[in-house]
Amino acid sequence: MAQHGTLGVAVVGTGRMGADHVRRIDRVISGARVAAVVDVDAERARAVAGPVEGCAAYTDPAAALAAPEVDAVLVASPGSAHEAALLEAFRHDLPVLCEKPLTPDAASALRVLEAEQRLGHRRVQVGFMRRWDPEFTRLKALLDGGELGRPLLLHCRHRNASVPSFFTEPMLINDSVVHEMDQTRWLLEQEISAVTVLRPRPGRDAPPGIGDPQLVIFETEGGVLVDVEIFARCRFGYQVQAEAVCERGTARVGDAHGMLVNRDGRWGGEIAPDFTVRFATAFDRQVQAWVDACRRGTVTGPSAWDGYAAAAVCEAGVRAQATGERVAVELAARPALYQD
Amino acid sequence: MAQHGTLGVAVVGTGRMGADHVRRIDRVISGARVAAVVDVDAERARAVAGPVEGCAAYTDPAAALAAPEVDAVLVASPGSAHEAALLEAFRHDLPVLCEKPLTPDAASALRVLEAEQRLGHRRVQVGFMRRWDPEFTRLKALLDGGELGRPLLLHCRHRNASVPSFFTEPMLINDSVVHEMDQTRWLLEQEISAVTVLRPRPGRDAPPGIGDPQLVIFETEGGVLVDVEIFARCRFGYQVQAEAVCERGTARVGDAHGMLVNRDGRWGGEIAPDFTVRFATAFDRQVQAWVDACRRGTVTGPSAWDGYAAAAVCEAGVRAQATGERVAVELAARPALYQD
Amino acid sequence: MAQHGTLGVAVVGTGRMGADHVRRIDRVISGARVAAVVDVDAERARAVAGPVEGCAAYTDPAAALAAPEVDAVLVASPGSAHEAALLEAFRHDLPVLCEKPLTPDAASALRVLEAEQRLGHRRVQVGFMRRWDPEFTRLKALLDGGELGRPLLLHCRHRNASVPSFFTEPMLINDSVVHEMDQTRWLLEQEISAVTVLRPRPGRDAPPGIGDPQLVIFETEGGVLVDVEIFARCRFGYQVQAEAVCERGTARVGDAHGMLVNRDGRWGGEIAPDFTVRFATAFDRQVQAWVDACRRGTVTGPSAWDGYAAAAVCEAGVRAQATGERVAVELAARPALYQD
Amino acid sequence: MAQHGTLGVAVVGTGRMGADHVRRIDRVISGARVAAVVDVDAERARAVAGPVEGCAAYTDPAAALAAPEVDAVLVASPGSAHEAALLEAFRHDLPVLCEKPLTPDAASALRVLEAEQRLGHRRVQVGFMRRWDPEFTRLKALLDGGELGRPLLLHCRHRNASVPSFFTEPMLINDSVVHEMDQTRWLLEQEISAVTVLRPRPGRDAPPGIGDPQLVIFETEGGVLVDVEIFARCRFGYQVQAEAVCERGTARVGDAHGMLVNRDGRWGGEIAPDFTVRFATAFDRQVQAWVDACRRGTVTGPSAWDGYAAAAVCEAGVRAQATGERVAVELAARPALYQD
Repeated sequence: MAQHGTLGVAVVGTGRMGADHVRRIDRVISGARVAAVVDVDAERARAVAGPVEGCAAYTDPAAALAAPEVDAVLVASPGSAHEAALLEAFRHDLPVLCEKPLTPDAASALRVLEAEQRLGHRRVQVGFMRRWDPEFTRLKALLDGGELGRPLLLHCRHRNASVPSFFTEPMLINDSVVHEMDQTRWLLEQEISAVTVLRPRPGRDAPPGIGDPQLVIFETEGGVLVDVEIFARCRFGYQVQAEAVCERGTARVGDAHGMLVNRDGRWGGEIAPDFTVRFATAFDRQVQAWVDACRRGTVTGPSAWDGYAAAAVCEAGVRAQATGERVAVELAARPALYQD
Repeated sequence: MAQHGTLGVAVVGTGRMGADHVRRIDRVISGARVAAVVDVDAERARAVAGPVEGCAAYTDPAAALAAPEVDAVLVASPGSAHEAALLEAFRHDLPVLCEKPLTPDAASALRVLEAEQRLGHRRVQVGFMRRWDPEFTRLKALLDGGELGRPLLLHCRHRNASVPSFFTEPMLINDSVVHEMDQTRWLLEQEISAVTVLRPRPGRDAPPGIGDPQLVIFETEGGVLVDVEIFARCRFGYQVQAEAVCERGTARVGDAHGMLVNRDGRWGGEIAPDFTVRFATAFDRQVQAWVDACRRGTVTGPSAWDGYAAAAVCEAGVRAQATGERVAVELAARPALYQD
Repeated sequence: MAQHGTLGVAVVGTGRMGADHVRRIDRVISGARVAAVVDVDAERARAVAGPVEGCAAYTDPAAALAAPEVDAVLVASPGSAHEAALLEAFRHDLPVLCEKPLTPDAASALRVLEAEQRLGHRRVQVGFMRRWDPEFTRLKALLDGGELGRPLLLHCRHRNASVPSFFTEPMLINDSVVHEMDQTRWLLEQEISAVTVLRPRPGRDAPPGIGDPQLVIFETEGGVLVDVEIFARCRFGYQVQAEAVCERGTARVGDAHGMLVNRDGRWGGEIAPDFTVRFATAFDRQVQAWVDACRRGTVTGPSAWDGYAAAAVCEAGVRAQATGERVAVELAARPALYQD
Repeated sequence: MAQHGTLGVAVVGTGRMGADHVRRIDRVISGARVAAVVDVDAERARAVAGPVEGCAAYTDPAAALAAPEVDAVLVASPGSAHEAALLEAFRHDLPVLCEKPLTPDAASALRVLEAEQRLGHRRVQVGFMRRWDPEFTRLKALLDGGELGRPLLLHCRHRNASVPSFFTEPMLINDSVVHEMDQTRWLLEQEISAVTVLRPRPGRDAPPGIGDPQLVIFETEGGVLVDVEIFARCRFGYQVQAEAVCERGTARVGDAHGMLVNRDGRWGGEIAPDFTVRFATAFDRQVQAWVDACRRGTVTGPSAWDGYAAAAVCEAGVRAQATGERVAVELAARPALYQD
């Protein structure tokens, strides 16, 4: 490690998320610096590395991860490149913060699990950032405290102002609802055992070829029912809400009522335009928690198992979406490394 | 009619609802008076009639409805007695406000429809009082105005502090969710075409033998999906909420945030204890609207057709609840009298 | 009284408020009917009386109040005509609901007090309708219950979308802040002992010649401080709020958050356009309470003393407004009739 | 500067605020480290320095500030020690983040201003952390944008659960209301020209010898009126609110409604227990902004002039509090260094 324990981070992938993480580690995070950036596009890598003091630009992840000033890896490349990057990090026994998805499917996720088990200790934290959102952490604490009794239902809303032109129907599950999958598993500490996708008529502004919105139902192994409204193109803003219905009360997060304005015959306030605004604090806290753990020599947060479970539930979800049927989730046995 | 057009109302049934309607017509409603009360329990009828000026007590509905000072009938007896009371009112061509349910099943409801058709004009308004709740009427106006585009989803919550000891699982549908059935049909102006009932694990305080809460899904003929959380014994209070998700925005009613108190480390306010408090204004407006229409010689509001449709959807809902299957709703053809 | 105890009401004055009260008594209120309307403009009186069954039109209040079918009087004429109307009602010992102000100044109000005392019993209820607003009554109950300890401060907001062209600066006090004067006296059960008016720079849309908004400070005899923002032309809507700051907590009413809409990047809802919308329920309940009391042979609600006290505080307020000084309120001794 | 531009900070004073800043710089802030801590209590200094890698403990500020690894100074000692610490920092031309107050009175603050002017450039940022609170920055942006027109009134609430036993009445102004003084000057970009303090009866739980709560009125040079409720021992929690009343609308911050819970007959949520919780994000952002500016070689944020102006308004406020009179604020001419 560098002087005063500053963690040297290699950021793999310098697209929107990667570039934002470079800025975050450079400007916001305590105890870390961007030692290297990696992108197959050499020009882009150099452009991102340029303004960062002491940051090298690479096109080859293997070269970057072998550099002595690299203590940890943040993987923000496309999902299809994650498996290779993770295995390379394992070769150097480097801790990794891997943007979701861990890998694009359950089979490849299982290979990552196996490789990590061969190391004998956790090296991967998966980027499910909602676990660091102040409101969601308060909800988790309330549920854990047990004051409201056991949760019975979880109502979720996930509304997105719009989606890019390449968006496809399975991406509703794999890119969006995957957050509610992890959120459900984390809040309830139960695996999801089945998924059903219900479809209303699509709205007139639904992206071509996509049934938008949809209502996704999870059943958990403990018998909790979860309904998720996923609305990819709701137009009015980005809004994520969750209400836990427990035996003795309910708790709701995500109304996000900050400044209240009276104007032109209406009271109210602004809705966040997108996830980078809504979850800015969560992203910051997520990376800080990872850096803090790395500097203590550990890895915490959502594990590769959580990444695998999300992939497995996503596979069931996409099949449920395509068939209209209830699809049971088949999970591998949970390895000892991921018991807690 | 009495002097100055005061409507003489016979209230049939003097249980909790009936007695409350007697008080309402006597003290709150303009242009009407309680001319007669009817109850098989003569003592009870006399006790309710006593404090009301000019009010006679009957044990026989037929005798009460034949009395010359009776201009209209409010039926608040048990559901099993509704058919007979309605037919008796039809014999005298009296307008009726019939507490829900119209009748306890679709077959008897159809007989009422046929009898009303033989009269050739509407005589029945069914007591779905939510149609007069100030927040729900605002939601209806917003949806009708079309500013948010077409509705696609409707999320409903129906939470009850507790239920009496004789409560049974079908009553979750017939007594509680029936309100969301009518609300859905009224807000969307679409029939419900199928019902599914999903069950989480029951809470520890669930009434014996009842899976509480449940999540009821309606599909409408126009393709809107409706999810209803029905929670019969949530303990914390009575709460009814609805959020319409439309193509360009959403609208939610029922948060009911009146006075805001800061105290003992918490901000917030009171939840209504029960439906009589939450819907007090709706009940008053419903009866006033009925009285006003009666005095103009008409009947408006939810019709016998709405009562029949609710009964048919309830039958499907109870079957869905018992079987765990999606159950399609089979409705009779809508008679000309109930087209609008 | 008429058959079945229906109260025959004479409505004196058929301007905006008077006409609205005619509609209310005719359509909303239980147990009363409009027996007579009075207006110096005969045509207007006839136009208002026309649609109401059994309602006579008068130009002379004395003639109307002498009519046998008149059991009670609602005074909604201009304030300058109130004293004469009240004294005429006293001649017939008729109960009166007198729109605020009781009379335009403290001296004439004292004459009314004296006349009523000569009758030996209360005959006047003054139209401070906020005392019947559901939120304000809840606040009153909370303060009376004592759970929050004694009130120490009261923060009030009174915002009006716009004002008519004849509006003058003293009307800020006499027409608008007079409501907070009565509200303060009612909520706290203390007299107001001094008034100060503070002025910020006027807004660019302030009515010509009027310092708008203003901040009015009341001190009560019990040492509570009350600040009132009066904003006659805030443009965005009509909004009345109050927050009581007590020893162990605070309570706020008037946020009036009914239906919540997400749309166009904003969450929120509508603000009432004017007082008839915001206080519709309060007006209805006020008149119903008066009618109910009249039918029981009594008068309740804000008394002539409350009308006099408001007039005295208004006089101090207008002087404070004109001088920029703190002005002490001098009240006559409270007659025995108005002790409770 | 240290490797990779890490800013070495000396924290002077290791009481509650100082120790919290040490934790913050060590764990939260990017680009800085705690190089030294200073406390007259040597044992306490060592205890705080111990867990921080590479942090030296001093009892003499002069020695600490002369250390080569110290690039900047955070002053968190008692206010009476600020002047000496600031002058010592100026001797080394070190940038300073000085907790409020700059100094305890206007005369000493003026001496600091003069010393900084002799340096010829700004070296001081004063710790008015509200300027970094997310809600207040949104309010500032809204006012600056001009969409609501010019501000006319500002209503402020400052409620504290309780105060320590050594709390005195002037501390209501100097320690608490000083935040509203800076907030007013910052939001409105106007100096405060006069202060008045109004007193209701004290609550039963008021700290001995202290009139609590109080209502403090500011007038600004631009004619805006500001009312501040300061309540030192409101018991229910820590709550800071502000509502700007502008020509075409109002905006309110501080309702702070995060997670909404339904339970035991009430809806609502938690109130922050104290300022460290309520303003945690603001403190973090404040220090990060200071560190970022230091590393760029500049100083931004509230200046020594802002510290002086606050001291001058506080002096007027304490006099107003003692006399019950309106007290005009006399400010020195604003030196060129502090024009912007």
